[in-house]
Amino acid sequence: MKSDFACPIPLEQYPKVLLAHGGGGKLTAQLIEKMFLPTFDNSRLETRHDGAVFDIEPGKLAFTTDSYVVRPLFFPGGDIGTLAVNGTVNDLAMCGAVPRYLSAGFILEESLPMETLWRIVRSMKQAAEVAEVEIVTGDTKVVDRGKGDGVFINTAGIGHVLHHRCIEPASVEPGDKILLSGDIGRHGIAIMAVREGLGFETTIESNCAPVSGLVMSLIEAGVEIHCMRDLTRGGLASALVEIAEASRLHLQVEESAIPTCEEVRGACEILAFDPLYVANDGRFVCFVAPGDAERALALMRSHTPDNQPSLIGSVTRQDAGLVTLKSTIGATRMVDRMSGEQLPRIC
Amino acid sequence: MKSDFACPIPLEQYPKVLLAHGGGGKLTAQLIEKMFLPTFDNSRLETRHDGAVFDIEPGKLAFTTDSYVVRPLFFPGGDIGTLAVNGTVNDLAMCGAVPRYLSAGFILEESLPMETLWRIVRSMKQAAEVAEVEIVTGDTKVVDRGKGDGVFINTAGIGHVLHHRCIEPASVEPGDKILLSGDIGRHGIAIMAVREGLGFETTIESNCAPVSGLVMSLIEAGVEIHCMRDLTRGGLASALVEIAEASRLHLQVEESAIPTCEEVRGACEILAFDPLYVANDGRFVCFVAPGDAERALALMRSHTPDNQPSLIGSVTRQDAGLVTLKSTIGATRMVDRMSGEQLPRIC
Repeated sequence: MKSDFACPIPLEQYPKVLLAHGGGGKLTAQLIEKMFLPTFDNSRLETRHDGAVFDIEPGKLAFTTDSYVVRPLFFPGGDIGTLAVNGTVNDLAMCGAVPRYLSAGFILEESLPMETLWRIVRSMKQAAEVAEVEIVTGDTKVVDRGKGDGVFINTAGIGHVLHHRCIEPASVEPGDKILLSGDIGRHGIAIMAVREGLGFETTIESNCAPVSGLVMSLIEAGVEIHCMRDLTRGGLASALVEIAEASRLHLQVEESAIPTCEEVRGACEILAFDPLYVANDGRFVCFVAPGDAERALALMRSHTPDNQPSLIGSVTRQDAGLVTLKSTIGATRMVDRMSGEQLPRIC
Repeated sequence: MKSDFACPIPLEQYPKVLLAHGGGGKLTAQLIEKMFLPTFDNSRLETRHDGAVFDIEPGKLAFTTDSYVVRPLFFPGGDIGTLAVNGTVNDLAMCGAVPRYLSAGFILEESLPMETLWRIVRSMKQAAEVAEVEIVTGDTKVVDRGKGDGVFINTAGIGHVLHHRCIEPASVEPGDKILLSGDIGRHGIAIMAVREGLGFETTIESNCAPVSGLVMSLIEAGVEIHCMRDLTRGGLASALVEIAEASRLHLQVEESAIPTCEEVRGACEILAFDPLYVANDGRFVCFVAPGDAERALALMRSHTPDNQPSLIGSVTRQDAGLVTLKSTIGATRMVDRMSGEQLPRIC
């Protein structure tokens, strides 16, 4: 990465993105040569080809994609660029893969300030460095003013699966313990607070971060992981329901074991949100064989002590495809998918 | 694919895409379960996981991405769905790779007719079948009305590189012959005609199609290919300039050898477009060792006889990084990148 943080595109000449920046002509070339290549600096991009070519060890690959349309583009704890890298890195980690290569597809709205794009591109580079992935291929399109919303980013990712287990909903077994990697709700509330100008007293930050390092340490320690899922759109509740339905098992969860920070609880009360459904970033659930639960939890605690990882429940056979939550006062209720849209465009 | 062509989402209930279709709740699940999974039907999607996992033979992989923002969504000869599959398939082919797996990331605008999405998804499935690739992972986001433009699609692709050559601009050598896989300009003019309602007398159709079959037959025949590039945004001229600059060689091209059909020529005259810069789909240039040019051309002719493949020029050493065109009347002019935007959003 260039040590110089000044935008490499001459701003007096091109203060805003033009349609021609996506047209495949001189301005597209300038954007690629001056901004993307030196920032995402790597040998595959240098070939200036239609795609990246690399050697791959034999074995299993994981492949995933996500588009990012978060609003606003910048929020406490991150921005669309950090999300676009970490979100896809985390999806690969959820497959039990070591994230390796990312693609980046930008859909820019005509008149986007060039400085904004530059800030996002730098964030992506920084996030890629932290997560130890390379952005090896990309694409830029520009749509007319009023036909987009600043920037949308798609990233696809390739990771190398280094273990021999099938880490997927179908591998979940009765008796499995359900671990949660940290407290929930920060990302969604951080977005909401800045978007709606709620002005909470304390600034809640998104916990946007790669979880691949923690996942790899669990795999390397030989923890028998059956399934993992990150808790983005739809929050913890949706992830659990999806896994219950796909595995046709009953998940029983204790509300008191699910950590939420005071600020998130307070904000959820004001907004009448259920933290179980609030989006997260940098958080996941992990289904492990019962004998490995304590060891896995200890690893999580040593890896990210501040996140309050916890054992939140277990898997039983009865009532296939359901999630039940035992509340702090002892009542049990069924957890369902969200039926509407609580908070659009949080990722 | 379902033989039933009726939209699998109940249209009386959901005639249009809602924000909640991208929210990760019930409607997102319905879209995935009822539309995407049965249509893109394959075992990797069936795991309902955050990504697709598959075995890969050792060797080289190619990885590429493109976002598609074409306007209008449907045009003579194709639609955004066929483009999204074929464009990425062709980028992989340009790396000398056999296209294998695609991801699909949808960014939908709230209020998009559900039928429109269904038509596009069916097109993608059909194009994937023709190109022999599987759509193995995906994502759907919905943005508020007025913040998108119907549908944007990103596809990323993985292909297997089956040869041992580096097919890239740096491999181009003095003496190489430049082959063009067919007549130029149809895609851009087809889009323009329908978009601007020009009502040309004949309907020019896009030649949106996968070129991977032809490329594989060239590789299998042992043709010494040094570089390939498909002629999308910026047309033939931009592809040649990019390769000349990246290889630092001089490309000499004969205008009379570049096939254009009468309708395209006529439309370009009316619109004051230079066909060299008009976007194509399903067309590419191929740089081959001089001794293999005739054989490669014969293969192209036998593979796609109607496309008029042709030998359009050669590579020399002098005047590094330039493209010159010898016109039909014998004058020579330099070919440069497009400086503005001729025709936005053609792919």
